[in-house]
Amino acid sequence: MLPSCRESIKTAVLLVPKFARFDRCVHTVRLKPNYTSVNYNVSRGGFAHLQKQHLYFFRDLLGEHRMISDTIELEKYNVDWFNNLRGCSSLVLKPKTTQEVSQILSFCNQENLAVSPQAGNTSVVGGSVPVFDEIILSTELMNKIISIDDTSGVVVCQAGCVLENLDTAVAEKGLMVPLDLGAKGSCQIGGNVSTNAGGLRLFRYGNMHGNVLGLEAVTADGNIIECLGTLKKDNTGYHLKHLFIGSEGTLGIITKVAIQCTTRPTCQNVAFLGAQNFRKVLKTFKLAKQDLGEILSAIEVMDSATMEFIGEKLNINSPIGDYPFYLLLETSGSNTNHDSEKIFKFLEIALNSHFILNGTVAVEHAKINALWSVRERIPEGFNLCGHLFCYDVSLPVENYFILVDEMKIHMGSLADRVFGFGHLGDGNLHLQIETKEFSQQIKDHLEPYIFKRTAQFGGSISAEHGMGFLKAKYLNLARPPSTVNFMKDIKQMFDPKGILNPYKVFP
Amino acid sequence: MLPSCRESIKTAVLLVPKFARFDRCVHTVRLKPNYTSVNYNVSRGGFAHLQKQHLYFFRDLLGEHRMISDTIELEKYNVDWFNNLRGCSSLVLKPKTTQEVSQILSFCNQENLAVSPQAGNTSVVGGSVPVFDEIILSTELMNKIISIDDTSGVVVCQAGCVLENLDTAVAEKGLMVPLDLGAKGSCQIGGNVSTNAGGLRLFRYGNMHGNVLGLEAVTADGNIIECLGTLKKDNTGYHLKHLFIGSEGTLGIITKVAIQCTTRPTCQNVAFLGAQNFRKVLKTFKLAKQDLGEILSAIEVMDSATMEFIGEKLNINSPIGDYPFYLLLETSGSNTNHDSEKIFKFLEIALNSHFILNGTVAVEHAKINALWSVRERIPEGFNLCGHLFCYDVSLPVENYFILVDEMKIHMGSLADRVFGFGHLGDGNLHLQIETKEFSQQIKDHLEPYIFKRTAQFGGSISAEHGMGFLKAKYLNLARPPSTVNFMKDIKQMFDPKGILNPYKVFP
Repeated sequence: MLPSCRESIKTAVLLVPKFARFDRCVHTVRLKPNYTSVNYNVSRGGFAHLQKQHLYFFRDLLGEHRMISDTIELEKYNVDWFNNLRGCSSLVLKPKTTQEVSQILSFCNQENLAVSPQAGNTSVVGGSVPVFDEIILSTELMNKIISIDDTSGVVVCQAGCVLENLDTAVAEKGLMVPLDLGAKGSCQIGGNVSTNAGGLRLFRYGNMHGNVLGLEAVTADGNIIECLGTLKKDNTGYHLKHLFIGSEGTLGIITKVAIQCTTRPTCQNVAFLGAQNFRKVLKTFKLAKQDLGEILSAIEVMDSATMEFIGEKLNINSPIGDYPFYLLLETSGSNTNHDSEKIFKFLEIALNSHFILNGTVAVEHAKINALWSVRERIPEGFNLCGHLFCYDVSLPVENYFILVDEMKIHMGSLADRVFGFGHLGDGNLHLQIETKEFSQQIKDHLEPYIFKRTAQFGGSISAEHGMGFLKAKYLNLARPPSTVNFMKDIKQMFDPKGILNPYKVFP
Repeated sequence: MLPSCRESIKTAVLLVPKFARFDRCVHTVRLKPNYTSVNYNVSRGGFAHLQKQHLYFFRDLLGEHRMISDTIELEKYNVDWFNNLRGCSSLVLKPKTTQEVSQILSFCNQENLAVSPQAGNTSVVGGSVPVFDEIILSTELMNKIISIDDTSGVVVCQAGCVLENLDTAVAEKGLMVPLDLGAKGSCQIGGNVSTNAGGLRLFRYGNMHGNVLGLEAVTADGNIIECLGTLKKDNTGYHLKHLFIGSEGTLGIITKVAIQCTTRPTCQNVAFLGAQNFRKVLKTFKLAKQDLGEILSAIEVMDSATMEFIGEKLNINSPIGDYPFYLLLETSGSNTNHDSEKIFKFLEIALNSHFILNGTVAVEHAKINALWSVRERIPEGFNLCGHLFCYDVSLPVENYFILVDEMKIHMGSLADRVFGFGHLGDGNLHLQIETKEFSQQIKDHLEPYIFKRTAQFGGSISAEHGMGFLKAKYLNLARPPSTVNFMKDIKQMFDPKGILNPYKVFP
């Protein structure tokens, strides 16, 4: 038997987060986290342990250069982006083709070896790292763009394409991948689809269920599910591909995707606005939907505590002075003059109606980026706190900030700061609780309370980040028992031995 | 045992099609079709036959006024819209609540009674009528709108709401149901979702997978699957609702839906254009996507044979003179001046680039309707032919008209006319073959040839109409065996006795 998890001592090690937009963190020296299995007291499933003869099989299939078993090299695959979770896999496999994925899974299924699928490893709920010694199947070498059709706007590619690279490639044909998120420089499209990733412009372009025209996936026994259609309309039998969208690699590993790209907008505007209270934020939101209609592409919100947070941590200040709430609205269209006229007219009405107190509009690229950076750089401050408890929830838009207010009261002096920001257009709140340091007592005061209240407000305990490992135990708060039972039946059907991404999604 | 199918004699009967937009057909006297089971030589499944004690159960549950067993009244539920198919159900049940649907299905499952779910009965592939004596479960009384949230734009309603009524209700809040189709005056939203209906504006607003935020469905054993979320972002476990979207009532009966409406556009323009050949149609299509971008809401095409057809049958003439191809483009936006400027600029470029030979733009409501009617009234001519073989397929947009040309050659003198029109923006072709009368020989010459060629061109044998009864036998042309096997496994899981919509989808 090869080495398994035994150490649990924190060791100083240089971990380099890969997020392109978070590059200020690059040189932070971070402590290696404890093993997840120890920290969270998890019992290992009855999977086989990796043996030498298994390695021989994989070596014959991939060659040694597409396997990683060196302890130092393994580290970045075993540890999650937030540096909170750590598996102890002793093997990373890097297939290049669907056939190789199929052969790997078929063999693992036969040998009862657990597999942790990994794309860009940018999950913030521990969905992409092993919990024990699962074999890590990395899609990073499956990065071929197969075709871009500039008439239909469909791109077909392997699952390991990095989102930003894919978007750059389609941009040459006047197209845009209808998905944008902070981790775009590292995350892979297969991971995006597996987690039904949301991001900044879901409000305009919809989610993966609407934009993925087809996909190919390999189930636990190596069976290749071929649903790689490129047609906008295809109603021939069950729409199986949707089972793989958002199931976080527990039903199969996505190997290829076909995505409907949108025409790349030729002009953008961004407005940054200040409002007196959340009621007026909502009035502004409704006005924007009405007056900016088809060109509105993002609508973000943050509270004054968020602005204070980035002021303190990153020396970023509000571009319009201090207000209780801030809105960032983006428009994307095909005619600069038309869009500018619309946004300035909207701004005038919003000001005259006293929905907003102040605002600025950027029409030039540099100023647009400057305004967006106020919103996009918030996560850079996360690593500069004592400790930050981060929650990604959805709420009915009328109740969007109720949870922030309630958590301020609930936490009292336990928290240094409670703040909220996020994608207002989608009802997606990122709720943050800053404390001096991590404490189990504080965590127990937060969870499951925060999830219970989210559910009571008619919200979702995971908006865009999935369940992964960290939220899996709260599945019963999110879904009624009959639905959970159906999920279990489907898991049993697709992966009877449970080898695919174990300890994730299900409690 | 109650009466079952024995007659198969054609009887003259006044059948009144319910399509709001096809009201010119209303007074046509049509012959009752032969029984489907006889015409298509189908063997009845091993389901129980309806007994008196079953009727007592249903009477106790619903009362006699919500059951139909009168032969004349039953007819409109037993016969399909095209008047080609005829079941011989002796019972229609009209539940009003999810609980009643659950009790009906639970009982039918226990008694092994087959059920044919029926919404607006506007299927053109025989998906909504029984084949034998299945009990018809009609959702027509489940027509309550539960809530309309004008901030988030979400409408929640029962499955039996007629699409047009739903759209009228949300219009009062400045919203629009992101789905429009010819049958809107009769079809019900539950049927639309069950069949993943497409229609005229899918190009802009996407399909049901993108627009349905949540649904509630009842499985064969009466289990209520509760996925009626109203949030744009919710990633908590498997996305089960998508299994019910497009599975045509074979996995469960949808009882409620939550739909993300879009802001209702305040202005529309329609351009009607003539082009020399399909290559130039495609150039126009690409130009429109680029220059009309965010306001383009429909892009329809028809060939000269289609124009001749409606000229002969309906006395409708081209509003711009005769051309080999015609395009209809619609824009929908929030600013009349901006949209008009965009569409006139587009038209100027298209003319100057010789992509189009002629064109007219309508900005007024009456003229817009007049231009749309050229496209929308095509189906009115269908009942005025000797016989018309109708096919709804998707093709890669570059190959969109190849199949029309090929079928002209393939049919030779067997056909009086072969013509094609449809939703170019979605690659969705409606291919029609007009003959003097129905003949099995002609049908055998057409099928499965037409489906095989569609598949060979990379298309889909059912774009927006589903498989229903008529296309079920060609499932193996549309899906590889491994995928069909997965479909069967899922069917087995959700409906082990196969009582839900038997003889549909699967061969």
